[in-house]
Amino acid sequence: MSTIPVIGFAAYSGTGKTTLIEQIVYTLKSQGYRIAVIKHDAHQFEIDKEGKDSWRFTHAGADLTIVSSREKTAMIEQREKSFSDLIAMVHDVDLILVEGYKQEKVPRIGISRKATGKGLPRAAEEYIAVVTDDKILAANCDPVFSLDDIQGISAFIKKTANI
Amino acid sequence: MSTIPVIGFAAYSGTGKTTLIEQIVYTLKSQGYRIAVIKHDAHQFEIDKEGKDSWRFTHAGADLTIVSSREKTAMIEQREKSFSDLIAMVHDVDLILVEGYKQEKVPRIGISRKATGKGLPRAAEEYIAVVTDDKILAANCDPVFSLDDIQGISAFIKKTANI
Repeated sequence: MSTIPVIGFAAYSGTGKTTLIEQIVYTLKSQGYRIAVIKHDAHQFEIDKEGKDSWRFTHAGADLTIVSSREKTAMIEQREKSFSDLIAMVHDVDLILVEGYKQEKVPRIGISRKATGKGLPRAAEEYIAVVTDDKILAANCDPVFSLDDIQGISAFIKKTANI
Repeated sequence: MSTIPVIGFAAYSGTGKTTLIEQIVYTLKSQGYRIAVIKHDAHQFEIDKEGKDSWRFTHAGADLTIVSSREKTAMIEQREKSFSDLIAMVHDVDLILVEGYKQEKVPRIGISRKATGKGLPRAAEEYIAVVTDDKILAANCDPVFSLDDIQGISAFIKKTANI
């Protein structure tokens, strides 16, 4: 197993979880950290562009296609991989952020947006921190951050990950 | 190192190398084999679609982004990987086809199309087989296949790879 610290995010859809992760990546990158993101997509996702070589190989039936240039490596594999297999694919980063994979035991930040009317997916105690605009929820959580406090959340993540 | 057989393809641009590999993948897949393709792209390549989550993480600065669903896993890493690192990423296939990476020592099929006016990148003896529409070149090569003999090339690959 990797020894790279892993921090997860949990929220019902509509909370802006992806945007929050995007902003945290941007913030930590600007501070010089190397970051990986692993996301479980519950839906079918389309990556790649019609007509590109990787698309052509994949559509011809390739179970696994890799394209690599001097700047970039992309891999498309026609199967689900276990969370530990995905973690094992990650090298040379300071931190792994995870969206989804809620069954996996990783320290997790819970996000709740009042407008969704749904609260947190699990009890607040199950999260290492809560991010919310719901004042009643916030009053019962510690640490708690507002949805736009990207600097605060990023600092908390760094402290927790010890990076 | 992987013990999965590896067969490479070498040709000047304009020979239809990608199309040939695509057709071989299709043929071998229809025969029940599991196939990986590894391609070195000399140019900048664009994978992923603007606005998709993986695109958003990458553009926020993520050094490595993985998205996985029940059917598919995609990884985009912002660096070149060595050929042996790429080979190590491949599991559970019967055969790896390689386009590019001409410095790597893999059994390689040379492809030449007369219209390009360029012949083979190296001497015919350096290839395990030659695919060409050039009758003069063909007369000096063994084994040799015509550009449209996908069945013959595929059968030769299976024999060579011992699959």
